[in-house]
Amino acid sequence: MTGMKRTTEKNLMVFSGRANPELAHEVAAGLGTGLVPTSAYEFANSEIYVRYEESVRGSDAFVIQSHTAPINEWIMEHLIMVDALKRASAKRITVVMPFYGYARQDKKHRGREPISARLMADLFKTAGADRLIAVDLHADQIQGFFDGPVDHLMALPILADHVRDKYGDQPLAVVSPDAGRIKVAERWSARLGGAPLAFIHKTRREDRPNETVANRVIGDVTGRICVLVDDMIDTGGTIVKAADALMADGAAGVVIAATHPILSDPAVDRLKNSPATEVVVTNTLPLSDDQRFDKLTVLSIAPLISRAIKEVFEDGSVTSMFDGHA
Amino acid sequence: MTGMKRTTEKNLMVFSGRANPELAHEVAAGLGTGLVPTSAYEFANSEIYVRYEESVRGSDAFVIQSHTAPINEWIMEHLIMVDALKRASAKRITVVMPFYGYARQDKKHRGREPISARLMADLFKTAGADRLIAVDLHADQIQGFFDGPVDHLMALPILADHVRDKYGDQPLAVVSPDAGRIKVAERWSARLGGAPLAFIHKTRREDRPNETVANRVIGDVTGRICVLVDDMIDTGGTIVKAADALMADGAAGVVIAATHPILSDPAVDRLKNSPATEVVVTNTLPLSDDQRFDKLTVLSIAPLISRAIKEVFEDGSVTSMFDGHA
Amino acid sequence: MTGMKRTTEKNLMVFSGRANPELAHEVAAGLGTGLVPTSAYEFANSEIYVRYEESVRGSDAFVIQSHTAPINEWIMEHLIMVDALKRASAKRITVVMPFYGYARQDKKHRGREPISARLMADLFKTAGADRLIAVDLHADQIQGFFDGPVDHLMALPILADHVRDKYGDQPLAVVSPDAGRIKVAERWSARLGGAPLAFIHKTRREDRPNETVANRVIGDVTGRICVLVDDMIDTGGTIVKAADALMADGAAGVVIAATHPILSDPAVDRLKNSPATEVVVTNTLPLSDDQRFDKLTVLSIAPLISRAIKEVFEDGSVTSMFDGHA
Amino acid sequence: MTGMKRTTEKNLMVFSGRANPELAHEVAAGLGTGLVPTSAYEFANSEIYVRYEESVRGSDAFVIQSHTAPINEWIMEHLIMVDALKRASAKRITVVMPFYGYARQDKKHRGREPISARLMADLFKTAGADRLIAVDLHADQIQGFFDGPVDHLMALPILADHVRDKYGDQPLAVVSPDAGRIKVAERWSARLGGAPLAFIHKTRREDRPNETVANRVIGDVTGRICVLVDDMIDTGGTIVKAADALMADGAAGVVIAATHPILSDPAVDRLKNSPATEVVVTNTLPLSDDQRFDKLTVLSIAPLISRAIKEVFEDGSVTSMFDGHA
Amino acid sequence: MTGMKRTTEKNLMVFSGRANPELAHEVAAGLGTGLVPTSAYEFANSEIYVRYEESVRGSDAFVIQSHTAPINEWIMEHLIMVDALKRASAKRITVVMPFYGYARQDKKHRGREPISARLMADLFKTAGADRLIAVDLHADQIQGFFDGPVDHLMALPILADHVRDKYGDQPLAVVSPDAGRIKVAERWSARLGGAPLAFIHKTRREDRPNETVANRVIGDVTGRICVLVDDMIDTGGTIVKAADALMADGAAGVVIAATHPILSDPAVDRLKNSPATEVVVTNTLPLSDDQRFDKLTVLSIAPLISRAIKEVFEDGSVTSMFDGHA
Amino acid sequence: MTGMKRTTEKNLMVFSGRANPELAHEVAAGLGTGLVPTSAYEFANSEIYVRYEESVRGSDAFVIQSHTAPINEWIMEHLIMVDALKRASAKRITVVMPFYGYARQDKKHRGREPISARLMADLFKTAGADRLIAVDLHADQIQGFFDGPVDHLMALPILADHVRDKYGDQPLAVVSPDAGRIKVAERWSARLGGAPLAFIHKTRREDRPNETVANRVIGDVTGRICVLVDDMIDTGGTIVKAADALMADGAAGVVIAATHPILSDPAVDRLKNSPATEVVVTNTLPLSDDQRFDKLTVLSIAPLISRAIKEVFEDGSVTSMFDGHA
Repeated sequence: MTGMKRTTEKNLMVFSGRANPELAHEVAAGLGTGLVPTSAYEFANSEIYVRYEESVRGSDAFVIQSHTAPINEWIMEHLIMVDALKRASAKRITVVMPFYGYARQDKKHRGREPISARLMADLFKTAGADRLIAVDLHADQIQGFFDGPVDHLMALPILADHVRDKYGDQPLAVVSPDAGRIKVAERWSARLGGAPLAFIHKTRREDRPNETVANRVIGDVTGRICVLVDDMIDTGGTIVKAADALMADGAAGVVIAATHPILSDPAVDRLKNSPATEVVVTNTLPLSDDQRFDKLTVLSIAPLISRAIKEVFEDGSVTSMFDGHA
Repeated sequence: MTGMKRTTEKNLMVFSGRANPELAHEVAAGLGTGLVPTSAYEFANSEIYVRYEESVRGSDAFVIQSHTAPINEWIMEHLIMVDALKRASAKRITVVMPFYGYARQDKKHRGREPISARLMADLFKTAGADRLIAVDLHADQIQGFFDGPVDHLMALPILADHVRDKYGDQPLAVVSPDAGRIKVAERWSARLGGAPLAFIHKTRREDRPNETVANRVIGDVTGRICVLVDDMIDTGGTIVKAADALMADGAAGVVIAATHPILSDPAVDRLKNSPATEVVVTNTLPLSDDQRFDKLTVLSIAPLISRAIKEVFEDGSVTSMFDGHA
Repeated sequence: MTGMKRTTEKNLMVFSGRANPELAHEVAAGLGTGLVPTSAYEFANSEIYVRYEESVRGSDAFVIQSHTAPINEWIMEHLIMVDALKRASAKRITVVMPFYGYARQDKKHRGREPISARLMADLFKTAGADRLIAVDLHADQIQGFFDGPVDHLMALPILADHVRDKYGDQPLAVVSPDAGRIKVAERWSARLGGAPLAFIHKTRREDRPNETVANRVIGDVTGRICVLVDDMIDTGGTIVKAADALMADGAAGVVIAATHPILSDPAVDRLKNSPATEVVVTNTLPLSDDQRFDKLTVLSIAPLISRAIKEVFEDGSVTSMFDGHA
Repeated sequence: MTGMKRTTEKNLMVFSGRANPELAHEVAAGLGTGLVPTSAYEFANSEIYVRYEESVRGSDAFVIQSHTAPINEWIMEHLIMVDALKRASAKRITVVMPFYGYARQDKKHRGREPISARLMADLFKTAGADRLIAVDLHADQIQGFFDGPVDHLMALPILADHVRDKYGDQPLAVVSPDAGRIKVAERWSARLGGAPLAFIHKTRREDRPNETVANRVIGDVTGRICVLVDDMIDTGGTIVKAADALMADGAAGVVIAATHPILSDPAVDRLKNSPATEVVVTNTLPLSDDQRFDKLTVLSIAPLISRAIKEVFEDGSVTSMFDGHA
Repeated sequence: MTGMKRTTEKNLMVFSGRANPELAHEVAAGLGTGLVPTSAYEFANSEIYVRYEESVRGSDAFVIQSHTAPINEWIMEHLIMVDALKRASAKRITVVMPFYGYARQDKKHRGREPISARLMADLFKTAGADRLIAVDLHADQIQGFFDGPVDHLMALPILADHVRDKYGDQPLAVVSPDAGRIKVAERWSARLGGAPLAFIHKTRREDRPNETVANRVIGDVTGRICVLVDDMIDTGGTIVKAADALMADGAAGVVIAATHPILSDPAVDRLKNSPATEVVVTNTLPLSDDQRFDKLTVLSIAPLISRAIKEVFEDGSVTSMFDGHA
Repeated sequence: MTGMKRTTEKNLMVFSGRANPELAHEVAAGLGTGLVPTSAYEFANSEIYVRYEESVRGSDAFVIQSHTAPINEWIMEHLIMVDALKRASAKRITVVMPFYGYARQDKKHRGREPISARLMADLFKTAGADRLIAVDLHADQIQGFFDGPVDHLMALPILADHVRDKYGDQPLAVVSPDAGRIKVAERWSARLGGAPLAFIHKTRREDRPNETVANRVIGDVTGRICVLVDDMIDTGGTIVKAADALMADGAAGVVIAATHPILSDPAVDRLKNSPATEVVVTNTLPLSDDQRFDKLTVLSIAPLISRAIKEVFEDGSVTSMFDGHA
């Protein structure tokens, strides 16, 4: 037959935007490689420029960017990086979003709103993304917003094992800060050996339905260390009020655990002044020095992401990473 | 300028599949028109054939089909109807799904599962759908699965007003049958003048996390008529156990309300034998005679759908239909 | 250069829906492998659920489903299986349709009909299919309905060689049951060493053009064993009348050969009572015990499909499989 | 409500490429309008340039081009015209192909061939076509190649009525020149009051299957005027041999009727020298003076196309144009 | 015929992002309407939220946003606004970009760069844009990046008429600041009655090809008022050096004219200190107080955009707006 | 795990249309392989037929066609070849366009024009092209018209090295024939060691702006060999007038260099009779004997294309091919 044959090789390459380079370096190191050298900067009018310093032709490319503030800046950089990879003949492009921006706008709460979380999925698809890797999506349904494979990683084992190791000898309760996220609390409970569940119920007066009048604790937390769990902490209002309610209800202590430390103002002050004795998060989002405080514990999500990339590259099973027996 | 001018007219036409023609007739009648005459039948090998008996060229077409069992049959008929409209030059095609099939498979619970609810959205888009109208989606995020406008109607005012008219002079409580749907109960509470909330908490033994050992009622229901609310009743297991738990907890009575009466076996027997005194549903899904029983009340969703179609046709605001003051 | 290299492997995996598992098992066995373990069942409301029990990441996936009655059920399962493969990162998805459902609705016979055969092609593309393999499409043009490679396999050598081996020592004629499929009969004739052709001409009265008044045999069949050939037998009406006409015209005997044994009611009775001494089909569609009868011979299509899959996997030439000299 | 309202008008505009301007002028005149003035020419290197001399913004545009030789030139001009309309904000673009180029390459006869008829459909879709109008497609399945509405017009009534008016008082037979197009002959027969059918069977020697040894007439044509019907006449070889065979078989005369007069060399000589007394075609393709000869009758397809455009513009039913009772 | 008819109206609605509301208000006022009331703000983590306060169903929507710094913020808001319009059933969405962000990255200058200008076109298409209106694109080819109609407006008449009115009685020359944009200068020359052309040639030393050693004036400018023209002024370096060279070459004075006043640091200081006596720009981009200075003249582009929107809405000809005789 | 593993090989295959087979043979030979045997011819009505004589399944296919006159013929053949490759399961299809047809129609110069260069990119994408390789695009922005990777090769080193070798010992000047292409001349200057630049300025009378009255040489060319550079020579009018002007201005001689020798009539006569002593081009377009003349030098572009294909096949860096130090 006419032609020239050649055994096919694939080449994993890891790329990082400028939002959270520490995490990306750690992920690459965990894979035994480095980040592909990349020029990225803004022009005077704030347009972003990106160029890779090495050939990426034929590569199995993983592009990491944390969608932190200024979030539109970093998402646009992420999109531009994908476009540059597509035009430079990368073979497959996997977008790695430790935190998926705009995940909370995942439905129309009222008419004439956007569904920005779906828009993001489509923008990345248009730019050239073949696959997504994300950690702890705000709603599991967001997996269905992307037209292609999504590897949805869960930080729960990392966070929960830290809590178990540190507090496992005391009576624990797992608490959800509102009625909408109790299923996450159930997974925590299972991981913590069946710790009892509780959650905070916001009650309203009949004549003022939009006004919360009290945070009532549902479930028995007396004498227990309460692990308050959520997917993200933004301004911290809800979770800190929950902590107050728990202490008022007789809890022995409160530990807050969340995957994504957005920590927008005034989250840090609220958390510092809260009754919580520890706030455990991961580094899916970068933290400035101002956002760090004594009782904050930051666990690294990098090993999880490295392992997922490795499995994707080697066609292993990401799902198997999260079995109860893993 | 060269050419021929003509004032543009639009022509609303309503089409129905064979799954629930009664509902479709009622919807068309509510609009002051009839269903477009349509031939539809199966060939010997169960392939479906559809043909419209009138020209549909340039029409603003609304195609109604209830996704009831045998659900794959009716979804395929729905798709084929959309294809025939597209090829016959309908100007705009709105798919009306009183019940959106496969809505519960809206995420990957485990690896290597489909996300069938997204697949359905894409199949209808491919067949030619420009817009969707659906009632009480299992998750609001499903709106984001379709790449185009979705009018998401809510049966709550219809169901809740019936309950209020009939039981409003007695003390009420709104109860969610599990922890995952309390937000719906909150909307009910607001509609019922701030009736107190409660819900059923399934407790598990620490050593057997996948096994429910008890249904605990959270919230005070003593002496109250409990309105147990859900989006659908399939086999009825969860909701009937919830009713039992409420009565055991001192409720004065139980009324069950749900939008979609799937009523798969053995739902009817369970409901008949349950302590609930009334089961209120809508006709988004057709009911056979076997599925009807004394304490079942079926309210018509047709006026709501007619009104939504009218608003879509006349470029009015569907959202405004659901204001508290509507 | 930055990155990690690795030689690429591909992994052939064979999947089967529930319509015709025997055929799929035989195909997989012919390839020297097994079917990938798969959970598939219906929920109470008849929605289908599918999940693969092994990682399919990076696989070269072949998904087999026979589109038999209830055909919409099995097509939907097929689509859902493709969606699950896409979301689980299969590298390439080849849909194997031994019988392509809705193939007969391949054009608009009249206005306002669907072209369901094109719709099917688009639905599978949307779900994630990269390629198709099908056997004996109703019209060759259906290859052009799918936007991608289609391997169109022909059962003719299998069927014709059986006939030649069994009846080759007698005088044969190849007969088409109507005027529209004579080209297939020509291929049979070539395979059978140039056996004479004949076909059945349905005559109509001038004043009643839509009414068949007689089946006239065109061509000389006197004293010959007539091989009546078609792509499928659905209710069997046409082909059995053709057999009657052939016998009336002096044929020495009739053998019926068709690729796809749909055998809808009352095909079995008609065939049993027909003058045909043998009905030869393949197993592209499963047959229930009720559909089997003494003079029915079922030849396996599995070796042909296995070989095509092997060629596709190894980048060989499927076309070459069907040379006269193969 | 904010905004400015305005009643919508639509404006039909007819455009023509340079392949067959006479037909386009006639079509426009039949609609009571003229062709939109258009500049079109080739650059020195044979690239085509097109520009419309009037605003086409918001128009309901119909672009007519006959796909005659040099066919690639005219198809490319057609595509470029559609692109220019799209970019100039035409509201809807209907491509009118009196003859659909590449229609005969509608399937893969052998491996590694294109399916050019599908490619054409996709190219026009990509350029911006919303709809197609075509006359007598080579295979009805080509309707399914285009992803959108196709109005498939039939010249049969025009051709057949001419034949009936001229020869209706003599005994007629309708003859298909080969075994593959007998269905067209059946429609002719119905239109001609049930005239008997016949066709030409090409017989082959058993040892030389690819070589035609004789053209045998099937059906009784003795003493009848034979109407030989086909969709197109290209080089005329098949149809002239058929005419010879009919005369040899005792026909009283032969009239040839076909929609598309491609008339490639040496069709004209063959037809002139054939026993056919008249060759009836339409003007879907332009004819040079060299292609015209005494016994050629050219009927205009323009009224049919004008009427179809009018129905499309006014949202009437094109299908109804072809009822037996139209 | 079944159905309900209704004469179609279209409703023009104008929407504005938050980047340059003054311009949008002026555009809407020029159309005799107002901006549609819109809620838009950032969440704590800088995600943008948008909601329209009125129904937009069926509207002919024009969404204006100036792509000024922080440019990624405003582009993302623009995209989100388009998504919200699409999901709220706007009939047609025209994106109005007075300045098209990322226009300068319109090609790969070197390998592994993005083509961000194409990416922007695709992102807006994905979000739901049907059409674009832009002013003075950096390269005309950008029109071809968008798959749909683009109305490309030119500010030249506005700028040039100002210059002619003010300086027309003195000898003028039109000067391009570099060799790449002389075609724009040619159009200026024609508008200014054939004023002579000149431009600045950057010379380089043979041994240091990337280093400009001198700005040489090509063309005779002695004693003339030089109109230095460009599409945008970013940091102002090139244009101010050009002004210096012109004065050194004997010009009687320099007037700078450019459509887009990006005016990034240190443009204002450079321009203030330059020999130019007037800097004429439009308000396609908003200017802060710090960006305004005595010799800066800002002409409004709003009437041009209003007129283009009106023509688009009324299906008139935008092109005709720019005839020499307009 | 279930399945069959196999190491992946890739197979480079080179295909050629009929426009310029000499170039394609040379490219294939440079890669150490041959062209894949292909049948290609026209039917009587000028429709093109293509078929590959070998299996192309799984191949990394490169399809070469020069877009020379009759250009629509060759572009259509190119598209059909891509379609055939797609349907025959080529794994990746790279379209090689030594000259990109319709490149000059890369924008709307006036309203209601097509953007044919974008249309071409979309047509090839639709047919199945994954990537493009082109030489010296008329505008760099055309890279952005294709939605995928484009390798843009430059003939400058080939042409310039020939000039340097032959004329490098004499004083040179690099001259652009008009004001629009001076950037190309700058690259030439750098390659030729910093030779001074000049160009031809077409002056117009103030009262007749569309009429060129003189070709003025800008820059000092006295006593120098002028290298007149352009991307293509079509009819040769502009470049020959430029040569005349240079000689009139005291040039010591003129050498013309251009990548693409379109050489439409009357280019050859003009060039023969021009003062240029040599015309240097490449073979991106085929030349007939009539188009060859004594002072024409044709350099082969084949080694450049071979090398680019090799780099693409082996995932090397095409960009690195064009470093000054390559």
